[in-house]
Amino acid sequence: MNYRMIGLIIGKLMKIEGLLLVLPLLVSVYYGENQWLPFLLPILLLLSVGTLLSFKRPKDSTLYAREGFVIVALSWIVLSIFGALPFYLSGEIPRYIDAFFETVSGFTTTGASILPEVETMSHGMLFWRSFTHWIGGMGILVFALAVLPNTNGSDMHLMRAEVPGPSVGKLVSRVRLTARILYGIYIAMTLLEVVLLALGGMPLFDSVVHSFGTAGTGGFGIKNNSIAYYNSAYIDGVISVFMLLFGINFNLFYFILTGHALRALRSEELKWYGVIVAVAVSLITLNILPQYDSVFTSFRYALFQVASIITTTGYATADFAVWPVFSQCILLLLMLIGACAGSTGGGFKVARAVMLTKIARNEVQKVHQPRSVNVVRFEGERVSNEAIKAVMGYFVIYVLLMLSTTLLLSFEEYSFLTTFSAVAATINNIGPGFELVGPMANYGHFSDLGKLLLSFNMLTGRLEIMPMLMLFIPSVWKRKK
Amino acid sequence: MNYRMIGLIIGKLMKIEGLLLVLPLLVSVYYGENQWLPFLLPILLLLSVGTLLSFKRPKDSTLYAREGFVIVALSWIVLSIFGALPFYLSGEIPRYIDAFFETVSGFTTTGASILPEVETMSHGMLFWRSFTHWIGGMGILVFALAVLPNTNGSDMHLMRAEVPGPSVGKLVSRVRLTARILYGIYIAMTLLEVVLLALGGMPLFDSVVHSFGTAGTGGFGIKNNSIAYYNSAYIDGVISVFMLLFGINFNLFYFILTGHALRALRSEELKWYGVIVAVAVSLITLNILPQYDSVFTSFRYALFQVASIITTTGYATADFAVWPVFSQCILLLLMLIGACAGSTGGGFKVARAVMLTKIARNEVQKVHQPRSVNVVRFEGERVSNEAIKAVMGYFVIYVLLMLSTTLLLSFEEYSFLTTFSAVAATINNIGPGFELVGPMANYGHFSDLGKLLLSFNMLTGRLEIMPMLMLFIPSVWKRKK
Repeated sequence: MNYRMIGLIIGKLMKIEGLLLVLPLLVSVYYGENQWLPFLLPILLLLSVGTLLSFKRPKDSTLYAREGFVIVALSWIVLSIFGALPFYLSGEIPRYIDAFFETVSGFTTTGASILPEVETMSHGMLFWRSFTHWIGGMGILVFALAVLPNTNGSDMHLMRAEVPGPSVGKLVSRVRLTARILYGIYIAMTLLEVVLLALGGMPLFDSVVHSFGTAGTGGFGIKNNSIAYYNSAYIDGVISVFMLLFGINFNLFYFILTGHALRALRSEELKWYGVIVAVAVSLITLNILPQYDSVFTSFRYALFQVASIITTTGYATADFAVWPVFSQCILLLLMLIGACAGSTGGGFKVARAVMLTKIARNEVQKVHQPRSVNVVRFEGERVSNEAIKAVMGYFVIYVLLMLSTTLLLSFEEYSFLTTFSAVAATINNIGPGFELVGPMANYGHFSDLGKLLLSFNMLTGRLEIMPMLMLFIPSVWKRKK
Repeated sequence: MNYRMIGLIIGKLMKIEGLLLVLPLLVSVYYGENQWLPFLLPILLLLSVGTLLSFKRPKDSTLYAREGFVIVALSWIVLSIFGALPFYLSGEIPRYIDAFFETVSGFTTTGASILPEVETMSHGMLFWRSFTHWIGGMGILVFALAVLPNTNGSDMHLMRAEVPGPSVGKLVSRVRLTARILYGIYIAMTLLEVVLLALGGMPLFDSVVHSFGTAGTGGFGIKNNSIAYYNSAYIDGVISVFMLLFGINFNLFYFILTGHALRALRSEELKWYGVIVAVAVSLITLNILPQYDSVFTSFRYALFQVASIITTTGYATADFAVWPVFSQCILLLLMLIGACAGSTGGGFKVARAVMLTKIARNEVQKVHQPRSVNVVRFEGERVSNEAIKAVMGYFVIYVLLMLSTTLLLSFEEYSFLTTFSAVAATINNIGPGFELVGPMANYGHFSDLGKLLLSFNMLTGRLEIMPMLMLFIPSVWKRKK
């Protein structure tokens, strides 16, 4: 384990976080809230500790895959520990464990909140809260790679560990350029959403924070009843479309930008994503029709909720807890599927779900015709045996993790559905679950241990399990001989 | 597809079922209930149709694996269709679909009942109801193989498709001998339980039917509140021990019989089964202690419920719905694990669960040390890549099946927990679930379509998925060229 390199990179990330915190401080000053201390103290702390850690250049700068995983896991934890300080120091979240939960929820783009009441918070804090979504959506390491000089061959390991999905796009061979392109697309789309929301009559501040929440597929709002507050079909529509867009693999936008739109449209994952969304929206629209006054209203709420859940954003325009159980079951299935690989969305990912289904079909086929050679194909290519084992292994670990954390959380003695959906909603980075953690409820009632467990789940889900698990293998921490 | 052979074998099985129905008829006569018609009519029907089907010997008697699967699936459906007739004809279950559900539940050793009230049923019907557990536990095809002459090389396919677990024991190379040994052990253990229960003061009739239910890991009782009726620590103890015994791979009893007790005790699956039961019983005993007067009482109920659930029997001595959520979560996990492979129990099987966990650990290890060669070992042997893929494939299909039937059943608009636990309790052949299908409730309230869906689940679970899925592949039905 190359401890010096780990320190160097985490130090650099801390400096970046320190600089990013200047933005909410400016917002706070602009609104006359002048919360200097809660922002300045963490900024100074981050800059000084970060400088200390990254002061000395290590002789050996090679990084192995496992070190990449450890760096990613540790840096997300460290950035959450410091990112929680403004909430705590300002007193707007009085308990530190709550502030930590909220920050992890922000960075991991989960959007699960412990706050029963957000409308009383200051603009500076609300901005920082939503800004963590935007930072975490594309990944802070990817950001570091985009803006920092002196990249070397080890960067790929970092990016592999942070970007969601079974395979990092091999867009361009140079990691830094890839990171810059990704962030370029990300910024442009976020700005476009801000403009469209503002045009629809949403105040500029609200437009910005909600665009952060959409872009990162996070879901923190600034109104107690989320997007339902604005009660505008136009705003619902814009956010629905952008949620769906941010749930798409960013490589596809790159293809479109470079004039390969056809190649993007041929994407098998995109096709399935579209089919799943279309089917789910249609079924729910019909199912909830009796509760609304017209097909249009019913469609509007169905589209918004499907987009919000499959992309794991978690915004709400309706309390789906009062919808029929069939609709709720569809939403629960969407929670388990998640967005596309290489998007800012969480969950198991459409690509993996499609591959698993094909593998299952293949196994049935094998029993039927034992001697036939069955090949699993995805995105036009034959999926290797190693890749099949990796997807299945991921699935097994994912299910085992959900079951074991459900068992641990059941100590809190909430109902089974509350417990299980809290686990599913955090591990898949969605936010709202059912019952006591439903769209109109919050996570404040869990014990401190429960909040730590759910924070672990959010980080594990966002980083796709392996990085967090690495931290628990003792031999990973051995010094390299 | 060799239709003649399928007809021949199903015909033979029908004749066997006809003969087996004589037993409940005798019980009915003994108790002076004289339900001649409800039993004689099905007996005559089964014997005549069976004779017609098996009259002409087909020229070609070869069977391929897929035909083995189709025969097993079809014969279980056919036997359930006819086995339901006595309940319907006697009027004791007035609707045929209910009688069918009850019979499928019996043969598949699920023990899910649509009856709100069993104590008013006649002795003959109660006997037949529990006898289906005993027949289905070891498998009626295995029975046929044990008693019928003219076996040939195709028998292995039939046995493979009917005996639960990832691998049929290669006890002895001759299938018929194996089948006879298995049934010998089965009968001896059932008789022993009858004697022990009777010694504890349980009436002989009750002892017999409850031994049937234990041996098949079925769970149909003859009292409305199941085993709780007898309120005897001795009876609870005997049934607990026998449930656990019938959840063990029968090969191990064979080893013990032939003087290889050490080999049996070295079984890795047995070790894990023991560990899981011990841990679950300890945790639940402690967790429910505040609800009971002593550690002994608490242990008694915990042991019984753990044994009942992990072996997928479904007897109840306590309403676990009022236990703490933590205990309920443990029981839900046990439902998903199930009994040992090669036992009469249902579920996913301990062997598969252990293999999956090892595979998962292996995948984590691979990320940590990509170049190390990691081998999954089970029962002292290296697990082949093919076997790993088969176990994972089974898991994927199993989860997909649970999710899709949950979605279909959610049309009934019961709560999520009722819906999901009904699916889990049928597909794993357990019987009771939670809430409206809990240990003190029943399945009568589902619609006809819901009951058919759950019947499908019970059959799919008992036959370990593949045979039932084969029925839905059109090309399986093509006549052999």
